[in-house]
Amino acid sequence: MGMTQTQKILAAHAGLDSVVPGQLIEADIDLALANDITGPVAIRELVKADMDKVFDRSKVALVMDHFTPNKDIKSAEQCKECRDFAHKHNIVHFYDVGNMGVEHALLPEKGIVASGDLVIGADSHTCTYGALGAFSTGVGSTDVAAGIATGKAWFRVPEAIKFNLTGELAPWVSGKDVILYIIGMIGVDGALYQSMEFSGPGVASLSMDDRFAICNMAIEAGAKNGIFPVDEATIAYQKDRALHEPRVFEADSDAEYARVIDIDLSEIPPTVAAPHLPENTKPVTELAGIKIDQSVIGSCTNGRIEDMRVAAEIMRGKHVADGVRTIVIPATQEVYLQCIREGLAEIFIEAGAIMSTPTCGPCLGGHMGILAAGERAIATTNRNFVGRMGHVDSEVYLASPAVAAASAITGVITDPATL
Amino acid sequence: MGMTQTQKILAAHAGLDSVVPGQLIEADIDLALANDITGPVAIRELVKADMDKVFDRSKVALVMDHFTPNKDIKSAEQCKECRDFAHKHNIVHFYDVGNMGVEHALLPEKGIVASGDLVIGADSHTCTYGALGAFSTGVGSTDVAAGIATGKAWFRVPEAIKFNLTGELAPWVSGKDVILYIIGMIGVDGALYQSMEFSGPGVASLSMDDRFAICNMAIEAGAKNGIFPVDEATIAYQKDRALHEPRVFEADSDAEYARVIDIDLSEIPPTVAAPHLPENTKPVTELAGIKIDQSVIGSCTNGRIEDMRVAAEIMRGKHVADGVRTIVIPATQEVYLQCIREGLAEIFIEAGAIMSTPTCGPCLGGHMGILAAGERAIATTNRNFVGRMGHVDSEVYLASPAVAAASAITGVITDPATL
Repeated sequence: MGMTQTQKILAAHAGLDSVVPGQLIEADIDLALANDITGPVAIRELVKADMDKVFDRSKVALVMDHFTPNKDIKSAEQCKECRDFAHKHNIVHFYDVGNMGVEHALLPEKGIVASGDLVIGADSHTCTYGALGAFSTGVGSTDVAAGIATGKAWFRVPEAIKFNLTGELAPWVSGKDVILYIIGMIGVDGALYQSMEFSGPGVASLSMDDRFAICNMAIEAGAKNGIFPVDEATIAYQKDRALHEPRVFEADSDAEYARVIDIDLSEIPPTVAAPHLPENTKPVTELAGIKIDQSVIGSCTNGRIEDMRVAAEIMRGKHVADGVRTIVIPATQEVYLQCIREGLAEIFIEAGAIMSTPTCGPCLGGHMGILAAGERAIATTNRNFVGRMGHVDSEVYLASPAVAAASAITGVITDPATL
Repeated sequence: MGMTQTQKILAAHAGLDSVVPGQLIEADIDLALANDITGPVAIRELVKADMDKVFDRSKVALVMDHFTPNKDIKSAEQCKECRDFAHKHNIVHFYDVGNMGVEHALLPEKGIVASGDLVIGADSHTCTYGALGAFSTGVGSTDVAAGIATGKAWFRVPEAIKFNLTGELAPWVSGKDVILYIIGMIGVDGALYQSMEFSGPGVASLSMDDRFAICNMAIEAGAKNGIFPVDEATIAYQKDRALHEPRVFEADSDAEYARVIDIDLSEIPPTVAAPHLPENTKPVTELAGIKIDQSVIGSCTNGRIEDMRVAAEIMRGKHVADGVRTIVIPATQEVYLQCIREGLAEIFIEAGAIMSTPTCGPCLGGHMGILAAGERAIATTNRNFVGRMGHVDSEVYLASPAVAAASAITGVITDPATL
């Protein structure tokens, strides 16, 4: 039986010729990731298990991105714990305030993850790197702790859903709309412990930033991972970035899939997920007019340069509506710098938005834009669970940067095409 | 007996020909200010006293600057309370995320305070506006509540210390060094309930941003207010800004002062206040070499464009030291925009500093750069009390933007002249 792209990566990292769905394997990891929330948990587990060591100081990444610049004493202490650990073990990829970015935007940008890698991260959106044709998945802090110390992790080999993409996206439609559309179709448990393997002629038309957004939210359909084939765009993205050689794994032509779902990209509308689940999706036209108090453009889902560009294109020469706090957060220092150099930063500030230094902040109700009771946000983030961005009586609508920017301008949920 | 500049403003606002030190007066106020911390306290007092009204909707300012963009649910609720109050009473000067800035930088910039005004604010650094030749002072939230409702406030007329300034500042020495030097000289209670009146031929050489920094920290010497004479620079600053006509009050030539202190500006070195009091000052040369973990450049003391320029001048083409979190916070959206347009923003990011959207944040241990136990910051902020920026076992050294920037580059407290 042929293998899926994911299965081939897993087999290669387990030193096996082939694997089958359901098989338990132990695989070598190329990277173990933790952040300022999960890092301290992992570090304490290591100490507790008398395993305070690092299997390879260049294959561990610690990114201080969630509550930084530190929002309180507790988060400061957590960062200090990570910092001390990083220094003690001379960890190469330690990112702190100043060179820091939102982890899942930062690691691909810095070339720390490459095609064909196997990555575990103590953060659910670790699945983002599937855009590069890597296998990456979120695991618990103790699994990451074991990975940090041993360089190994165990997996149950997932079966896969194949998404056969055709057509091209319409104007103002992006990768974010694709993944919201898919989650709306299959539900938040629609791909439980499965791989979401994207393929077909439509792939070529998707930018890398589209693909990052799509894979980022695979977990919101319950998937073990999301993954794209490696094509010219993937290789071009990694040129001058990748710190090690990309490896290309392709699904066998006779690979078996649990399901095959055809998606015509041209039929996807700007899509919004209403509270309180990412699967509560509707075309933006059906939600248009709902009043918002805040618009957040950023996060590991949509804080990349293309996201900034489309938001700026919409805000250029306009001003956000009275009473709408509009918070733009470039995901990394590099994206931030690019926003300045391309004139996007000026557009945002002139429009009455604010630009925050990179942080996960508002996405997880951490800081930098928390909602009060009764308040409603539109956000390019990835989760709209009850209380996700603040008070349990607040609401989050998930959308693309285009929709979030258009809504900031009008003060109500808005189809960018109607602006 | 002649009156000081402060006494003349107070007399005019009390409808009296003259006042004498110690006299209790009731005066009309030109502005009552509160922020997202003190605003809700004032609003609740108003409601409790059945006085939920505003004496003049154009003479109340509410600035959401301390814990914004909101760091948590509590701060979100506090802002909401202010926002609802502002909307209910149609308050003209309500500043929220998007048009917000650190209050004491914002109000002069927007022309809301003018020379000769009498301003009370529920924030201790309200004394900043003395730079414009206004009488302004920090009061409690209940006093501001009364001011908001009635347009009046009571005062005990202060006596004054006259600071006779001569000479000009040396390179890399700024208003911040002047006020630290003075506080070091007279102590944190050196001007208790007195006016600090600056005068003499040295005044003309001080920029408006120098004067703002100096008056801002008058409270750190215990002063009721700090004040500068109105000269060409003051008038020029207000041109195209002031929303109402500046009024010039001059000290009488026969005004009596509790003390007269001569200050030769040319003798002031770059000055740093060591923990844990602003009076613990030393020339930077005596503290040089002390290791720092964080450098903060911003706040109501030093977040203005000149502060940004001098910091950028020092950081240009350099990189901050490994392990130093360098947090640059332009005090207002206008300053932020200017940083982008003048190329300063690019310099900061390239140097490995981060730029935060305007907020008081780290200065008061609010958010955006809180210290863990054992950590040490150099900061352009105004207080270095125990635990001010985070953990009770952290330390803050107060300094100018030049010193904070130079120290960020080297990783130790550094005299900019030696860089």
